[in-house]
Amino acid sequence: MTFRFFSPKEKKKRLFLDYASITPIDERVLKVVHDAHQYFQNPSSIHKDGVKAKELIEEARKKVASFFRAHQDEVIFTASGTESCVMAIRGVVSEARKKIGRPHIIISAIEHPAISETVTLLEEEGVEVSVLPVDENGLVQIAVLKELIKEETILVSIQMVNSEVGTIEPIRDISLYIQKIKKEKTFVKNENTYPLLHTDASQAICFEDIDLRKIHADLLTADSIKCYGPRGMGLLFKRRNVKISPVITGGGQEFGLRSGTENLPGILGFAKALEIAEVIRVGEGERLADIKKYAAERITALISKCEINGSIETSSPHILNICFKDADAEFVVLSLDALDISCSYASACKSLHGDATSLVISALGKEKCAGSSVRFSFGRSTTRKSIDRLIEVLTELMHRGVIK
Amino acid sequence: MTFRFFSPKEKKKRLFLDYASITPIDERVLKVVHDAHQYFQNPSSIHKDGVKAKELIEEARKKVASFFRAHQDEVIFTASGTESCVMAIRGVVSEARKKIGRPHIIISAIEHPAISETVTLLEEEGVEVSVLPVDENGLVQIAVLKELIKEETILVSIQMVNSEVGTIEPIRDISLYIQKIKKEKTFVKNENTYPLLHTDASQAICFEDIDLRKIHADLLTADSIKCYGPRGMGLLFKRRNVKISPVITGGGQEFGLRSGTENLPGILGFAKALEIAEVIRVGEGERLADIKKYAAERITALISKCEINGSIETSSPHILNICFKDADAEFVVLSLDALDISCSYASACKSLHGDATSLVISALGKEKCAGSSVRFSFGRSTTRKSIDRLIEVLTELMHRGVIK
Repeated sequence: MTFRFFSPKEKKKRLFLDYASITPIDERVLKVVHDAHQYFQNPSSIHKDGVKAKELIEEARKKVASFFRAHQDEVIFTASGTESCVMAIRGVVSEARKKIGRPHIIISAIEHPAISETVTLLEEEGVEVSVLPVDENGLVQIAVLKELIKEETILVSIQMVNSEVGTIEPIRDISLYIQKIKKEKTFVKNENTYPLLHTDASQAICFEDIDLRKIHADLLTADSIKCYGPRGMGLLFKRRNVKISPVITGGGQEFGLRSGTENLPGILGFAKALEIAEVIRVGEGERLADIKKYAAERITALISKCEINGSIETSSPHILNICFKDADAEFVVLSLDALDISCSYASACKSLHGDATSLVISALGKEKCAGSSVRFSFGRSTTRKSIDRLIEVLTELMHRGVIK
Repeated sequence: MTFRFFSPKEKKKRLFLDYASITPIDERVLKVVHDAHQYFQNPSSIHKDGVKAKELIEEARKKVASFFRAHQDEVIFTASGTESCVMAIRGVVSEARKKIGRPHIIISAIEHPAISETVTLLEEEGVEVSVLPVDENGLVQIAVLKELIKEETILVSIQMVNSEVGTIEPIRDISLYIQKIKKEKTFVKNENTYPLLHTDASQAICFEDIDLRKIHADLLTADSIKCYGPRGMGLLFKRRNVKISPVITGGGQEFGLRSGTENLPGILGFAKALEIAEVIRVGEGERLADIKKYAAERITALISKCEINGSIETSSPHILNICFKDADAEFVVLSLDALDISCSYASACKSLHGDATSLVISALGKEKCAGSSVRFSFGRSTTRKSIDRLIEVLTELMHRGVIK
């Protein structure tokens, strides 16, 4: 059987620079997903076919766990990064409420809506929420975190890589700090179970070395569609000793933490996607870092009224966010679209509501850039030639007066 | 491109009689799912590719809505029947709690764990739950329901077809009764918004005519894996005027009710699966009803110490549940498995916990059959010949003394 890979490369006419929004499925992953449909039986069935399906899922779980250097029983499969985030936050809160009257959560100022919207709702339900500010590059400061953590703090949730500007947060240092205060039994009342650390690693999965023996996160979210995997798949890593209450309840699949018949093709495909990502991670990261640097240099050389949001040094190689001063981000994105380049402003989730103002850029203290910033994000089909074409089109937009 | 359909037919050696547990994906659906991966872009993106993806999803939503004779904006895509059930129950409860101090829910005694486990947890959270008993055929009695409904009743949740014995519940009559008491403004305090009716139609989808202009359910759950559709897909129908709070919160996809990037291939495949199911529904229902009758006659003629659970007349054509008196259900299923027939006891979800005792059979007042009942369920590859083979194997099991 031959497979056609629906790579953006093939679509000669259009240039896709929106990989942080979504990645296409890898052709090898698509093959795994397709072939896996032969094992259609319910993995909970006790007959041979069911047992075989269960075995395949557990093999995939083992493979996925090894990606994170975690244990097999620490990986819970979900249907999206969003579901994993909700499960982490709500799961910890529900469990903590058995002991703590008014639990306290700390999130960064630039979290994905899956986190920020969820905690906003929890605030209405009586949870106390603190927002950890970021500096002009989007970095959280551990010194400020230290001031916010208190006896009632049950959870700190900070993304590993920001989806809009690409900032890589110091998750390892944060995790070590939290480990330290637990060891010192700073908060006796909580039996030193808390605070727990959750990190949304959806944007980090292809580029960061996520070794959970070194990063002492208690919970970690990953999304399949950000790493060339199947659609409608996510996972939550949950350290063995961490207790959470389930959100999707029922038959008790996924260690009783996420009910519903397992999506076997999705799970096998996700495992394959992570396997591929691991193999090419370092090389692909270096390649894109070079492309990003090239793009940044050429864009800033071309356009006088622009600046890079975030710092190239402390951000992921696949995201370049540019503030086109005095321009309207939505108009820039649509003008690029008309000239066959796909990119985005704010986040795709945000644009769903027709709002081009980025809360992330505002949080960086760059209010003036909040409505003028465009995200270019790179992936496996992006080359220096893609950047040359982007420059050509941006030159055209300058001539038209869309950007200055 | 040619597709290989992984039908149970092809696996000559094994006979799959466990379609109520899960159905294989239809080869036409698999092709739709596969091809849909070319539209990989994020449907929330504003560029052309994103808009195209969004359009495809909305076309599919329209198609799915027409299956239920519902409006396009009444269909919310989820990742499973379980998720849909949780969303319906928790969504209604969260919304109702804004007005009603201690809301009351009524469910039948034979609901799927997605319902029964979820309301058990809600009971711990202060919701009052009443369980509507069923008769010896698994049927709920409207007369009893009438006695249970009160001012605080916000939700009645009754499955359309039971997954273990196949009982078809009188959902239309129940819905008409609830409509009636609302029109008569029986419960002024609730502004006649409540009670709402949710029905889990997962097992009904291939065989019942689910016309939501006639069945006045406010919420309805369907599961893609029960109708030869993609894995990891479900939907919740929610009538326009019904308000629920979201469970999976974040970017605000699916009308703000279920966040997370849409699973485009899954959605398009689910729409295709329902389209196919609709076309063949009547014919396939009649064909399986005949096979079920044939199976029931031959099994009861062969085995003296057996009886049918539920009534053939009031149950779905795809489920036949047999009590093998004095036999151990798990041993029967494993013995059939050893002779290459797949079937199940209790539900697959139940067997996950290694428990062969069926709560459903107990609820039918047949305590003695609770640990001795086996479900044979039929699908598109089942023929009279399949039944002949089942009879041969059951004969063998009699000789071996597994059944008497």
